Amino acid sequence: MVDNRKVGVLGGGQLGRMLIEAANRLNIQVNVLDAASSPAKQISAHDGHIEGSFKDSAAVKTLAQASDVVTVEIEHVDTHMLEEVASEVVVEPSWKTLRTIKDKYAQKHYLKEHGVDVADSIDLEGKGVEGLKEVGTTYGYPYMLKSKTEAYDGRGNFVVKSDADVDAAFEALGKRPLYAERWADFRIELAVMVVKTKDGVLTFPTVETVHEDSICKLTYAPPRNVSESTAQSAQALAKKAIGAFEGKGVFGVEMFLLKDDSLLINEIAPRPHNSGHYTIEACPISQYDAHLRAILDLPISQSNLRLREPSIMLNILGGQTPDSHVQVARKALESPNASVHLYGKGDARPGRKMGHITVTAPTLAAAEHEIHPLIDFVDAKKGKKTTTPSPRSETSLSTKPEPLVAVIMGSDSDLPVLKAGLQILETLHIPFTTRITSAHRTPDWLRTFSKSASATSLRVIIGAAGGAAHLPGMCASWTTLPVIGLPVKATHMDGWDSLVSMTQMPRGEPVATVGINNSTNAALLAVRILGAEDREIRERLRVWMEGNEKEVLRKDGVLLGGGGRLI
Amino acid sequence: MVDNRKVGVLGGGQLGRMLIEAANRLNIQVNVLDAASSPAKQISAHDGHIEGSFKDSAAVKTLAQASDVVTVEIEHVDTHMLEEVASEVVVEPSWKTLRTIKDKYAQKHYLKEHGVDVADSIDLEGKGVEGLKEVGTTYGYPYMLKSKTEAYDGRGNFVVKSDADVDAAFEALGKRPLYAERWADFRIELAVMVVKTKDGVLTFPTVETVHEDSICKLTYAPPRNVSESTAQSAQALAKKAIGAFEGKGVFGVEMFLLKDDSLLINEIAPRPHNSGHYTIEACPISQYDAHLRAILDLPISQSNLRLREPSIMLNILGGQTPDSHVQVARKALESPNASVHLYGKGDARPGRKMGHITVTAPTLAAAEHEIHPLIDFVDAKKGKKTTTPSPRSETSLSTKPEPLVAVIMGSDSDLPVLKAGLQILETLHIPFTTRITSAHRTPDWLRTFSKSASATSLRVIIGAAGGAAHLPGMCASWTTLPVIGLPVKATHMDGWDSLVSMTQMPRGEPVATVGINNSTNAALLAVRILGAEDREIRERLRVWMEGNEKEVLRKDGVLLGGGGRLI
Repeated sequence: MVDNRKVGVLGGGQLGRMLIEAANRLNIQVNVLDAASSPAKQISAHDGHIEGSFKDSAAVKTLAQASDVVTVEIEHVDTHMLEEVASEVVVEPSWKTLRTIKDKYAQKHYLKEHGVDVADSIDLEGKGVEGLKEVGTTYGYPYMLKSKTEAYDGRGNFVVKSDADVDAAFEALGKRPLYAERWADFRIELAVMVVKTKDGVLTFPTVETVHEDSICKLTYAPPRNVSESTAQSAQALAKKAIGAFEGKGVFGVEMFLLKDDSLLINEIAPRPHNSGHYTIEACPISQYDAHLRAILDLPISQSNLRLREPSIMLNILGGQTPDSHVQVARKALESPNASVHLYGKGDARPGRKMGHITVTAPTLAAAEHEIHPLIDFVDAKKGKKTTTPSPRSETSLSTKPEPLVAVIMGSDSDLPVLKAGLQILETLHIPFTTRITSAHRTPDWLRTFSKSASATSLRVIIGAAGGAAHLPGMCASWTTLPVIGLPVKATHMDGWDSLVSMTQMPRGEPVATVGINNSTNAALLAVRILGAEDREIRERLRVWMEGNEKEVLRKDGVLLGGGGRLI
Repeated sequence: MVDNRKVGVLGGGQLGRMLIEAANRLNIQVNVLDAASSPAKQISAHDGHIEGSFKDSAAVKTLAQASDVVTVEIEHVDTHMLEEVASEVVVEPSWKTLRTIKDKYAQKHYLKEHGVDVADSIDLEGKGVEGLKEVGTTYGYPYMLKSKTEAYDGRGNFVVKSDADVDAAFEALGKRPLYAERWADFRIELAVMVVKTKDGVLTFPTVETVHEDSICKLTYAPPRNVSESTAQSAQALAKKAIGAFEGKGVFGVEMFLLKDDSLLINEIAPRPHNSGHYTIEACPISQYDAHLRAILDLPISQSNLRLREPSIMLNILGGQTPDSHVQVARKALESPNASVHLYGKGDARPGRKMGHITVTAPTLAAAEHEIHPLIDFVDAKKGKKTTTPSPRSETSLSTKPEPLVAVIMGSDSDLPVLKAGLQILETLHIPFTTRITSAHRTPDWLRTFSKSASATSLRVIIGAAGGAAHLPGMCASWTTLPVIGLPVKATHMDGWDSLVSMTQMPRGEPVATVGINNSTNAALLAVRILGAEDREIRERLRVWMEGNEKEVLRKDGVLLGGGGRLI
């Protein structure tokens, strides 16, 4: 084993199970406190487990005695018991942190005190129905009524839409310790898994989370239609938030991305989190590896946490029938890039987390394309009308692969010149799209196209133009993708005008210019650029070039003796 | 669970353990026949396991009764017992296949009969010392003496170097059933994991295997210095070999790549194999997932088996001290892209397989760079003088990252023009190399450089030249990588000569030409090409371009009112 110390975990659900999966690989013994056949215990055969409830203080004590480091897979634990055992055993993260975070109002108050942006909130304990009405006056409607404790997956939350809702809201949640939150009019939700180690704070990549009925349904890494700088701001905010707490381990930070691109913390979880499941396949080490390493002071660095490939996680929830989750899992086995995780839970109640699927692919567009039928299948099982949550739904619905090359031209009169090049792309199986856009007649559309290009599946742009030929140069000024310029011979100057307009771009925005009217070379250059990273495309090109070489040698042979011999 | 059927496995070593890791994720119950605390049983807590030896026929019967499908993690089993239980339970792969393959001579004879290229071999059973001498006459020395059965990791093999070795060889192995193999003078060894399903035969990518003391030490995926077409031939040969056998499951096929690039089968294993461990991290599904899916007729397709990232696997063997394997594992935790697997075996005998490490990275060069210190560490633990097995040892030893861009120029007089471009590459942290090579003065060296470029870490080449400027065009004719042409203004014609020499390349070999003397744009184009696939590089470029935009706006502000305001 990499470490002789024994880890004790309060809770043996799916998070504990995936933690043990990571521990098994390092031969680290994890003692689980939970019921006998809990998911985590099923994959760990030793006699150090404790049978009982993680809320039972005697059982927590027994676990502490059998372990060197105690941690949690759930925050709804008795922190007073953890405080007591902390004198005998290391508890990570600190019981103080768990105590603050398990009370959502205290959590937000604490974050605000530490200068972290969170939604405004008002304490409602002991304030009765009147308190709820006052919030309506202060914040306006709608606002969010929440139980401070034991609230998760939408339970313990109530959206108060108008003063007519106040009585119903109080009746639903009035017996619990309550607080209210100002409504956050967010564009999308983001999440970041943060790792707190003995040396500092590290972050996994930012993901987009999609909730349905207040339960996490999907995560997208990287987030869709979010700039890299916003993704980095989300990591920075998450880092700041977790830096304010004591103790080690991984933390899930859920955020709102507002319509003005600013960020607000929504909630923090002091443990591995649903929004970090994707890390098992998508990063060199998973959130579970990271948690173990952090609490045991084993080596870990920011470079362990890179995104290997874009990925999408889809939760498998219990559905209408007892086996609908199994049907989803079986369906996912047909998906080329899907990893299927089932948690070994017995009963499938509607909405219960039974497993998850992670699809990784070379591009997020390809992952979206692949996950789409699985989302539809899940929705159909729920009796929901099929809609895709993807903003690229139209293209996702088709079975065509997403384009890697865009061929743009100022006018369809350039098409005859482009024909040979498009033929090359087809021959070499490169998915492409052709668009007509003119630097002078449709400057705004060219700008919109160019600015958004790098966030799509596109990798290279070919711009064909004649005359003053501003098209590829303007496109290059608005994108970071490589732009190939194809000078087209127009009425005057034999094509010299376009050739020079493209090559002589100012320092800063290069256009990769090929010969006049030589669309074959424009296409082949695009293929070379794609092949720089894609061995398969490069091999296709090599075979094609070899064929050309043989053809030239054959012609030479014909010239020589009429026999078509190779020398 | 995805499938209600129970799988029974003969053997509970590391292969069984990793098979159970895959089964756990799908909640498929696997019953293991092996000793009580065997590696596989440690991560599977249910009462369906059988305690005993996989060579004990009564135990095999008990396992068969408790299972729906029986499979093996080792081929040294009693196939007669499997033949007997095959009437009651599905056995995969077929006992016939296991019987043929477990006898290495029968295996080779069978392959030869089915038209598969294998090394020549001669049966030596009952032929005594005389038989060994005859082989020396027929095959010459050295030749390989092998036990037909129970031979693995070099045990049961003897290299007979001359007739002086014959007596020692017979003394070492004479009591076992023997055969001899003609010596294969191979360049390197390759291996392919093959999946035989109800519908056909699929293959994982080809890997290079490196053995030391006849035990697998390393695997490289993709293989180093092997063309894509050779890698494909290896897959085709492996597919043909396994297609000749009955039954379902994964098979390991080890091959020799001879010096003339032809391939010979070395050995076949009817089960998951050491050379397929890398698939856990490197492919969408692992060899263990594939084995389960194949024997249970669950969905699986060729696209499940792609290489997500280049990867290198390093075995962790028992060393000089009882804990040296633990030290290797701990050291690997410091490696950013390493996944560590320990098998939960008790005693670490020298040479015993205790675990493995897999490093995946965006390029094989980066993976080599990262695994190198781990190989050194392993070698040092063995008391071995540190040498790197990589053909790129000199560069691997340095801490510098492998170059992604090569800047080639005809003469060092071009350097002043290139300076601004090299500065850009440095600013944007792009590793590059500069070389002087002339199309006219050193045509052969240019050819050698260009032809080998795509097998190195290089992704883009920038060729700077003046006058007739053949350099980038000739380079492009010998490589499949994208080549950027930078026309340098020479004595006459103001640079027009070089500009036109580069842009007007014939159909087939494009040169991406930028403006005369504009090395900034040549460098930025290289960055765009790298950024097409690498989000991090693209983001660096975006930030840099944004800085330029702000700078221009600032200057405009200065012009406007002297205050440096942004509008």
